[in-house]
Order: sequence, then structure tokens, then C-alpha cells
Amino acid sequence: MINAGIIGSTGYAGSELVRILLQHPSVNLKLLNSRSYIGKNFNAVYDNFNNFCDIECSDLKIEDMANEVDVIFLALPHGIASKQVTQDILSKTKIIDIGADFRLKSQEIYESWYKTKHHSPELLNQAVYGLSEWKREEIKKSPLIANPGCYTTCSLLPLYPLMKENIIDKNSIIIDAKSGVSGAGRALNLGTHFIECNDSIKAYKIASHRHTPEIEQQLSEVSGQQIQVSFTPHLIPMNRGILATCYVNLEQDSIGISEEEIKQIYETYYKDEYFIRIMNQGVYPETRWVKNSNFCDIGFKLDERTNRIVIICAIDNMVKGAAGQAVQNLNIMFDIDEKTGINYIPTFP
Amino acid sequence: MINAGIIGSTGYAGSELVRILLQHPSVNLKLLNSRSYIGKNFNAVYDNFNNFCDIECSDLKIEDMANEVDVIFLALPHGIASKQVTQDILSKTKIIDIGADFRLKSQEIYESWYKTKHHSPELLNQAVYGLSEWKREEIKKSPLIANPGCYTTCSLLPLYPLMKENIIDKNSIIIDAKSGVSGAGRALNLGTHFIECNDSIKAYKIASHRHTPEIEQQLSEVSGQQIQVSFTPHLIPMNRGILATCYVNLEQDSIGISEEEIKQIYETYYKDEYFIRIMNQGVYPETRWVKNSNFCDIGFKLDERTNRIVIICAIDNMVKGAAGQAVQNLNIMFDIDEKTGINYIPTFP
Amino acid sequence: MINAGIIGSTGYAGSELVRILLQHPSVNLKLLNSRSYIGKNFNAVYDNFNNFCDIECSDLKIEDMANEVDVIFLALPHGIASKQVTQDILSKTKIIDIGADFRLKSQEIYESWYKTKHHSPELLNQAVYGLSEWKREEIKKSPLIANPGCYTTCSLLPLYPLMKENIIDKNSIIIDAKSGVSGAGRALNLGTHFIECNDSIKAYKIASHRHTPEIEQQLSEVSGQQIQVSFTPHLIPMNRGILATCYVNLEQDSIGISEEEIKQIYETYYKDEYFIRIMNQGVYPETRWVKNSNFCDIGFKLDERTNRIVIICAIDNMVKGAAGQAVQNLNIMFDIDEKTGINYIPTFP
Amino acid sequence: MINAGIIGSTGYAGSELVRILLQHPSVNLKLLNSRSYIGKNFNAVYDNFNNFCDIECSDLKIEDMANEVDVIFLALPHGIASKQVTQDILSKTKIIDIGADFRLKSQEIYESWYKTKHHSPELLNQAVYGLSEWKREEIKKSPLIANPGCYTTCSLLPLYPLMKENIIDKNSIIIDAKSGVSGAGRALNLGTHFIECNDSIKAYKIASHRHTPEIEQQLSEVSGQQIQVSFTPHLIPMNRGILATCYVNLEQDSIGISEEEIKQIYETYYKDEYFIRIMNQGVYPETRWVKNSNFCDIGFKLDERTNRIVIICAIDNMVKGAAGQAVQNLNIMFDIDEKTGINYIPTFP
Repeated sequence: MINAGIIGSTGYAGSELVRILLQHPSVNLKLLNSRSYIGKNFNAVYDNFNNFCDIECSDLKIEDMANEVDVIFLALPHGIASKQVTQDILSKTKIIDIGADFRLKSQEIYESWYKTKHHSPELLNQAVYGLSEWKREEIKKSPLIANPGCYTTCSLLPLYPLMKENIIDKNSIIIDAKSGVSGAGRALNLGTHFIECNDSIKAYKIASHRHTPEIEQQLSEVSGQQIQVSFTPHLIPMNRGILATCYVNLEQDSIGISEEEIKQIYETYYKDEYFIRIMNQGVYPETRWVKNSNFCDIGFKLDERTNRIVIICAIDNMVKGAAGQAVQNLNIMFDIDEKTGINYIPTFP
Repeated sequence: MINAGIIGSTGYAGSELVRILLQHPSVNLKLLNSRSYIGKNFNAVYDNFNNFCDIECSDLKIEDMANEVDVIFLALPHGIASKQVTQDILSKTKIIDIGADFRLKSQEIYESWYKTKHHSPELLNQAVYGLSEWKREEIKKSPLIANPGCYTTCSLLPLYPLMKENIIDKNSIIIDAKSGVSGAGRALNLGTHFIECNDSIKAYKIASHRHTPEIEQQLSEVSGQQIQVSFTPHLIPMNRGILATCYVNLEQDSIGISEEEIKQIYETYYKDEYFIRIMNQGVYPETRWVKNSNFCDIGFKLDERTNRIVIICAIDNMVKGAAGQAVQNLNIMFDIDEKTGINYIPTFP
Repeated sequence: MINAGIIGSTGYAGSELVRILLQHPSVNLKLLNSRSYIGKNFNAVYDNFNNFCDIECSDLKIEDMANEVDVIFLALPHGIASKQVTQDILSKTKIIDIGADFRLKSQEIYESWYKTKHHSPELLNQAVYGLSEWKREEIKKSPLIANPGCYTTCSLLPLYPLMKENIIDKNSIIIDAKSGVSGAGRALNLGTHFIECNDSIKAYKIASHRHTPEIEQQLSEVSGQQIQVSFTPHLIPMNRGILATCYVNLEQDSIGISEEEIKQIYETYYKDEYFIRIMNQGVYPETRWVKNSNFCDIGFKLDERTNRIVIICAIDNMVKGAAGQAVQNLNIMFDIDEKTGINYIPTFP
Repeated sequence: MINAGIIGSTGYAGSELVRILLQHPSVNLKLLNSRSYIGKNFNAVYDNFNNFCDIECSDLKIEDMANEVDVIFLALPHGIASKQVTQDILSKTKIIDIGADFRLKSQEIYESWYKTKHHSPELLNQAVYGLSEWKREEIKKSPLIANPGCYTTCSLLPLYPLMKENIIDKNSIIIDAKSGVSGAGRALNLGTHFIECNDSIKAYKIASHRHTPEIEQQLSEVSGQQIQVSFTPHLIPMNRGILATCYVNLEQDSIGISEEEIKQIYETYYKDEYFIRIMNQGVYPETRWVKNSNFCDIGFKLDERTNRIVIICAIDNMVKGAAGQAVQNLNIMFDIDEKTGINYIPTFP
């Protein structure tokens, strides 16, 4: 059994981790840290966990937790994980950071987008960007995984095959993303007060959301050139799910490509990827079809009038966008079947 | 492995059964019948089942299905199951009917409330009312289980201990129930058109809902006297869940009873019932804490000013209110650990 | 023109008042006070008011405001209004208090339910309970109106005629009420964070909600005897609206009364009440039919099996339950046609 | 008083027209036609109209209605209006068609996108495209107004000034639009069944929605060249509202333009347009701020990294997107103050 602990367990992503890990056959969830609920049992914070989890939330430090568990998940606001993780910690335990601190390779870009100092830049190169489907081999070898952002996962997976195949104009990428409100976390905020977001929709952080440099870093790596994208997140009155609508122009040489050929590209790249489901032509992903699951559904439409491809991707932001992918990475790191503990059928209704 | 089939698999309750049975370690889901989608693969009807279920929906008759499986679930509109089930069928396979046809012991009451003829009244006595926690021993022995209605389950479980203990005025029972829209099924209807029920609430079928005689039959059986209740269902703009708010007057002799004593009653009755969770005092059930699970949460408040007890019960109408309890009954019938395949942590958010 | 000011203008009830008063043909909305947004223009707090209201929110004191306007609306948390209103203020201006401080006649009951001292008990008898339809004559004459609570309005209007006619058992009253989330106000709170209340339902403050003594005071006054009720509020994932489901037992002598006779009672009492709409038999109120309007819809069902009447009442909690009724009272106080400025067709969808 | 009739009055757009016209001081709403509810009073179809509208829905033909009213609104599925309207009708009354039949100037494009024959192509040139802010002078003179589509209105108004000023690459226009469910109408459909769209989001009719050629026609007219756009509609779990997120590349010559300069362009074009509200920099439209109103809110962000402008536009699809703009056009046609009857403050919450 893999002994696991979570630091920051009482946020939404943390609680989703608790839920998944408790049902994981190879994991023993041992320690829960939470600044906000020290001394409270986990099921007193979240009543759904009655009968399942009465672990007491503690303020145990990462140094002490590292001595007791094989893996620590961090689910913390940015700027905190980079203070806590050290080489010493990494020599004792594996770290899967659901937060943003180790995702960007460039300290400068991190500090410019996050407006805060990075406290352990020496670890940035050691950290592996944990997009499971792309980085499997590196994930296996690293003690420090930077779990991707929810928007990033939902943007990268649909764009990757088209980038690799060089059929799209790399300067034309526009990602219009729509997220359920759980993505904003449990901290109280007027913008996520029920009345302020129910029965309404808004864009926010236009051209300035922090998942942008993360998307760009990964697409640049894949394409071997500097990529910039337009990324616009929107808040949708629903609990879970992200839908990303991606617009790309066909590269001049690729004009004339058929939908079947594009479908073939996706199938070639993802035929062995269990958690990526390519939709049939004419069928597009909807967030309801991936709810409470680790699946990433991808569909697309070739618009022959404008020579653009419109690609739609849906994930559950709490699962493939956070806790589920973190466990997928745990499975990879510990050489367990990658589906273990996260192979649930999406729930509907 | 238990071979299973479903007749009426493409409604919401049917699809929830498919989801649960596919993940059940002792069940082999073999045959799916659906009048509406003959010839279509199940995952073409519900895209969440991609990677999980491409069984083709057929119009296989119950007679033929009975030869191939150990248990058939019926998820049909009322009036149909009573035409299909026969002694011959029951000699070949077990039947768990999620519909209403075999719940009421009295043909007359059935025909009066359902405004239709009952086609197999001779089976009514053989059928066992499948409220798992009350009828475990009988369920084990019968080939025909009438799975309780969603509202009924959510009303009976909280009222049962107080009825048995004779502390309440049996003529004073009022049940004010609130259901998510999935309870109304997938058939198109103006009342469940998004715009007509979103951001609004209504009562419906006041003093005339068909779960009323079912509640009364079971409470009468428990109390040994004829019980009549006021039951009012309401439609809530949410997908899943039922909350029942039950009002009962204290019996004259019981005035003065304390909250602790009432809590003790609940704990005595339900201490061995895994799927029933009694809330701490001052904490009341909410549907979000039981979502996608088979749990039934019960809490209450003694109102000493009015000598009433207000009891709150929450279930997921699709799970404990339908498919989950049906599988709980399957487990009982086949002598498997009762929690098998339905012991999931409720999902939140 | 009537000059008006609002103290506490930036909560939901306050902003609804601003909206109604700005469109009121006989009112000049002159001054807005808000502790939270001093110095900000009102339309910077609520963007819907662009083009309509750029009045600057001030911290103007009630004494100063009283010199400049003919009427002041108070939309404040309890315990504050009773500190601010004095005989001197009342000699200069009229006060319509949307809060709770002047609703209860008994200082003792107020202090017991609100757990706070009342700062101006000497004004309690002078204050008129502003349920417009019951208190029209007194409202005309008083400078201090205690606008009723939202739940109270929705409970009293349907119960009043049956109480007056003595056809119901006065100890049997149970009110099961369901409210949209705007009733909880704009102050941040975990319970009204989107994720915590969307797609779920809960009861809260069972047998302890502060509108209970208000309901009892008014029903006691009407019936001439001490009345106690069971009152249970629920939170519904919708923006606006309250639905109250009221249960009453028929008085022994009234058993045998017909639905038509009960309908006749309602029509007799409310035939001249424009804002009360009695539904046809078999049709029940829904909150969507009164949205954004001052209407109070009432319907009922006589349950001949249990000798109970189930009465349903729907209002918009922000309008008839708060700002709309406040303006109705203003119209009465200033001897304007009672419908002025609040006679809008409910909006749907 | 202007006598008015509506054909197709019981759909959502029709009922919104009824609501607005009943409160319009210069209009006498005289006749309501509805195929689905012949013989029923309007308030029996929509209970919110109790006290306001008991006009009986008839199957009165357009020929007969034309003799009795000064203006007829058509709110019909496509393909029907083009059968009903004739020169003879237009000689007797004015027509404002909320449907699609007279929006496209080219019969060929209409028939290709709508897959149906156009029955009165000879009227296409006579019809004026009723985008009030652009076509005021022509609207005044024509008896036949083709009221714009909801998505079209929300796309054209934000793009128009930038097109006219030639600062954007005209081949780069991408419109990602999100609509509330009322846009799909009242006809029953699995896609708008509550459970199928609540708590989820989807794109639909990608690169094939019928508002596309309408957008292109108008942008081509403005720019004097053939424009093609990518247009993707999405369904959002809310009742009302459309948010359009528009992406445009800066024209080479315009790179270096500042946000202030772009703001200035919008203000120049729309300074006299009451119903268009340009947001302050850094503030973006949200559908909640225009709910139940005729306003069109526009905000934008210059992304200097990618040389794109992201423009956000929000309208209420039922009002500015349908019935409200229709009444705005009526006011223009009858030379009434353009705001009459539609100048309401948006409602929030």
C-alpha cells in the first residue's frame, strides 16, 4: 500500500483527492493537513464523507509528513508550495503539486504572471509537468510533479496532435474556455456568491489568466517555436466541468485536408490513451458526459468555408483537471495500472 | 457471476442501473431492452458510456430474456410490468421491478390511484416490497421484488422508528417532499422543459400523488392500524436528490421526550444499517451530501413549543430512490455483501 | 414629487428599492446611504444601473437625511434601525423599515428571538406592521412602518381568510417555506457560495427562524387567541421567489366544507386586492409566475381524505416580500394609487 | 394609439412581445393568434399574465388581422412568414417579422441555409433589416421589417465600429457565443429537457448555425467586401441572455493602437445610442446586467501580446435579441420616442 498525505485537503480539489484516494485500492490515505480546519474531522467539514473519513485535519508540517508517507499531494494557493518543497523533502517522499508553483519552467515568467517571488527556482527544472498523456516517461522518474491547470489540460490535449502534425497556423490559436464555478475554489468571494453567478455568464481575466503562459510553454515545447495564444475563460452557472472551444487556422499547405484525415490524426495519437475519447464526427463533447470522471472528450469540426478547425474539449475540472490527473500521475509514478482508482463511468444525470 | 438484463434501460433510472451494474464486481450485465432505441448501442444513447457499454439495445421479450439471465430489472411506466411478469417468468429468473406495478398489495387501491387495470393481481401477494432495511429477510426468499418509489423511500425510512416506538400521533403525519427533476423521467413534457422549471419551484399533484398509498400501506403495516398521510411533492431546479420534510405531532404520552431520547431511538433502529446515516443534533441532511450514492441521511428537530418533531431525510432519487436500492436488493437476493457495487462516497461538489 | 432616501441601499433589498423608486412616477430618489460603498456611484456597485443611477453612496446620517427627504427606507441588518430611529426623526420624515426591528410588538419576544437589545422599545407601539392588505388604514396614519418579512408575507396572506372565518384548527398550522437564495442577502457566507447551494436543497433554522414570532403575532391578533405555528424554511437553488406550502386541519365543525366554499372565502376576502391573485381550482402558484412583480398568488387543495387544506402561496421575495411592498406602503402613506410604480407584469421566462 | 396584433403569440418571443406591448403607453394590443392554443385565453397559457391579459388566442388569418390593426408582429418558425406576407398585406398594415424569413437579401443563401423554399422572394429587397441602431432611417420608411436574430444582434453591434474604422483584419473574425436556453423556444426537444442541459454546457451547430449568413451579410454590407466569420453557439444553463465573445486580429496598420483609442471609437459611434452601453476599461459585460432590458453592453480588451482585440457583448436574447428590438423598431416606424415602452432598468438579482 502507498501511504499518502494531503496538504490543503479541505478545498474543493483537496476534498476531491480525498474522495478518490479513499476508494483507491493501492493507497492508504493517512494524513490530512488543513489550515482552516485544524482539529476538525474531515467528515465534519464535508458531510458527504460520513462513514468514510473521520481523519482529523492537522497542521502537520511537510517535513514531518514526509517522514510518514510515500507521497504528498499539495493543494495550495500559489506561492506557498514553492516555500515548502525542498530537496530534502524530495529525498524522502514524492510530491504531486496540484497548484501552480512548479508548472512554469521560467522563474521570470512565473513571477511576472503571478506577481510574487518564487521561493525554490532551483527545483523548476527537476519538476515534471504532469500532463499524464504527454509526459508519462518523465513522470515515472521524477519525485516532483507539477500537476497541470484545469484550463491547460483542456486546451493542450485537443491541440497537441494538430501541433505535432504541423497542419495549423501556430499563430492563430484562440481558446475560448468555459468553466463551472468549482474551479474558483471554496474561498468566499463576491463573484462566486450564488446570486452573483447563477443564471448569468461572464468572461474574466481576458488575455491575462495565469493558465495562459502554461499553455504557451507546453505548446512551444511541442512545436519547437515560441507560441502565443489568446485565452479567454468564462464562468458558467454549473458546478463542475470545463468546455474549451479552440479555433485554429489551417496552415496554407494543409488547406484541403478532410475531416476524416483530421479524425485519423486524433485517432493515431490517442488510440492507446484510455482517458481520451475521440467523438464521432458530428458529435461534440458536453461537460455532462465526463462529470465525475477522468475522461477527456475531444470532438471537432472542419469549417471549410473559413479554413479553420473548431475543436471542442470537455473535462471534469475537479477530476482530469485536478485530483483525477494527480492520481493518474501517482499511478504512473508508482508503476500501477494507470486507470486504478479513477476508472469510473461518468455520472449522468 | 450473476447474469443480468434490464427492460426499459434507456430512461434515467435504467441508465443509472446500467452504470451501477457495469461497475458491480459480481454482475455481468448482458442484455439491454429499450423500446425507444432498438438497434442503437447504449453509448450512442448516453455518451457518458463511451469506453464502457456498447451493448445494443434490443426489443428482446421478457420470456426470452428470462432464459438467459439470472435477474431482470424492469424500469417501465406503470401498467406494463404487470402485463409482462408471470409465474412462468418467475420460475426462470428473478425480477426486480423499479416501477410501481407490484408495490401495492391491494389491486383495488392500485387501480383507483393508477386509473388502469392491474394485469397480474395474483402476483401481488408474492411480490415483496423492496425497502431493503425493513424487508431483508423476505427479499431473500422472493423472486419478485417491488422496488419502492423514490418519495416513499425518503418518507418511510425517517418515519419508521417513530412509528414503531409509538411516540407520535399517527393521524398527524405530513410529508412535504422536494425532488430534483430527474424524478420526472426522460419523456418530454412541458413541465420539465428547462425554461419552465429552472429558477422556479412548484408543488404538484397535491394530495393525489401515487406514492401516497404506498407510504400509507407501509406505515399501516408497521403500526398495525390504518394510516393516512398528507403528502405534497415539489419540483426543484436541480438534477438529483429528494429532501423530505416530515412533520409529526408527539403522542400525548410522549410529550416531554428529549432530543437525545429521539436520537437514541434512531440510533437503536439504524445502528447496523450502513446506508442510513443519522446526523448529529443541529445538523440536517442536504441532498448534496448524498449525491450519486446509496445513502439515506436522517436528521430531526424536536420543536418543544409546538410538540412536533420535524424530521428531514435526504436521498439521491436515482440511487437509494431507484437503481441503487434495486442493486442493494439484488445483493440481498443473491446473498452477496449488501454494499457490493453501491458503496461509493457521495460526490461533492 | 416625494423626495426619498435609502439607508442601506447596496444590499439586494436596497438595490431592488432603488430600481423600483427610480421608475416610480411620483418619487424623486435623492439620497443613498451605504456603509460598504461610501464614495462609490451606485452604478459602479450594480452595473445594471448604468444609464439610470449615478448617485454617490454616502454615509449620510439619518438625522441629516431626515431634513432633506419626505421618506426614508431602511434596509439594514437587525439591531441597527432601532438605534437610529427616534421621535425626533419621525417628526421630520416618514420611515419605512424593511428590516425586523419594529415588527414585533413585544420587546421581550424581540430580544429573545434576536438575541440583542432593542434600542427604542418606546416606538414599538407607534410602529405599524406594514402588511399592506391588512393594515391599510393604520399605515395611512403612521410615520413608522415595519415592513413585513418575506416569509411572513407569504405565510400570512394565505392563512388570513381561513383564520378569520374560523374554519381551521388554530393549533394545526404548519408552514413549509422554500426561498430563493437572494433572501440570504449579499454578505458573503459559505452557505450561499454558489457551489454549496447549487443543485441541492436544505432546510435551515428549523423551528427557530426569526420570522416565526412575526407570523404568530399577526395570526394571534387576527384570531384573538395565542397561536403557535411550525415554520421550516428551505434554501432553493434559484435567485428569487418564495413558495410557502401551508398545512391546516379543518376545524371539527367545518368538516364537509367544499373546495368551492373555500374558494368563495378567498374571493370574498381578496376580491378588491389587486396584488392578490387567487388561482383557479387545480392550478397552483409557482414562483416563476410572480417573478419581478408585486403579486401574491394563492391556490389551495382540500384533501378530503385527511380533512386538511394545503394552501400554496408564491411571492417574489424581493418585491412583495421586501421592496415592492415597501413602495406599496409608501403609496398608501402618501395617498397615491396603491399600484403606482409597482404594477408590472411578472417576467417569464 | 397604435393597434397591434401578434401572429405566433404563445412562444417565448411572442409572450415577451405581449408583455412589452401591454405596458407600452402608445400601443393597444388587440389581437393574438396562436396555432397551439386556439380558444384559450392568453393568461391560461402563461399564468404571469393574470390581471393583465385575457385576450383569447385565435387562428385569425393575417389577411383579416391586417384589416384591424396598424402593425402585425410575426413570431413564427422559418418558412411560414414568407408564405403569409404579401404586397396586399403590406398595403394595409406594417409588418415586423421576428423570424428569419426576410433577413437575408439573397433567396439563394436563404434556401441553402434554411433548406426550404422562400415563398415571397419579391419582398426581400423591400424588407429592411431591423438592427435599429444601423438602419433607423430605412426602418422609418418601410412597411416590412426583418427583426435581426438574437445572436446576430449581439455579434454585429460590437463589431460594427471596428469594421467601419478599418482597424481589423476582416478575415479574422471569430464569434464564440453563449446563449440561455430560452433562445431554443418552447417546442419540446430532448436537448432542452431540464436534465439534459442543466449543470452542463455544449457547443452546437458549429460552423453551421443559420445566424451565420445573417452576420456575414451585414458585415459585408458595412465593409464593402465579402466577409466570412467563424460562429459557434453554445447552450448555457440559464434562462435568458447571450454573451458573445468576439476575436479579431488588428489590421497590420493598426498595430500599436491603444485601448483608449479603441474606446474612443466605440464612444464616437455609440455616444447617441441610448441602448448601447460601453463599459469602462477593465469591466466586461455580464448577462445579468442586461436581464429583462433592451440594453446591449459592450466591453473589450486589447491583447497587445497577440495583437488581437477581444470584444464582449451581452444582451437579453428575449428583449434586445427579439421582442424589445421589435418594439424599438415599432417606435421608429411610428415616429415615437425610441425608448418608449422599453426603457426599463435591468433586473438583478
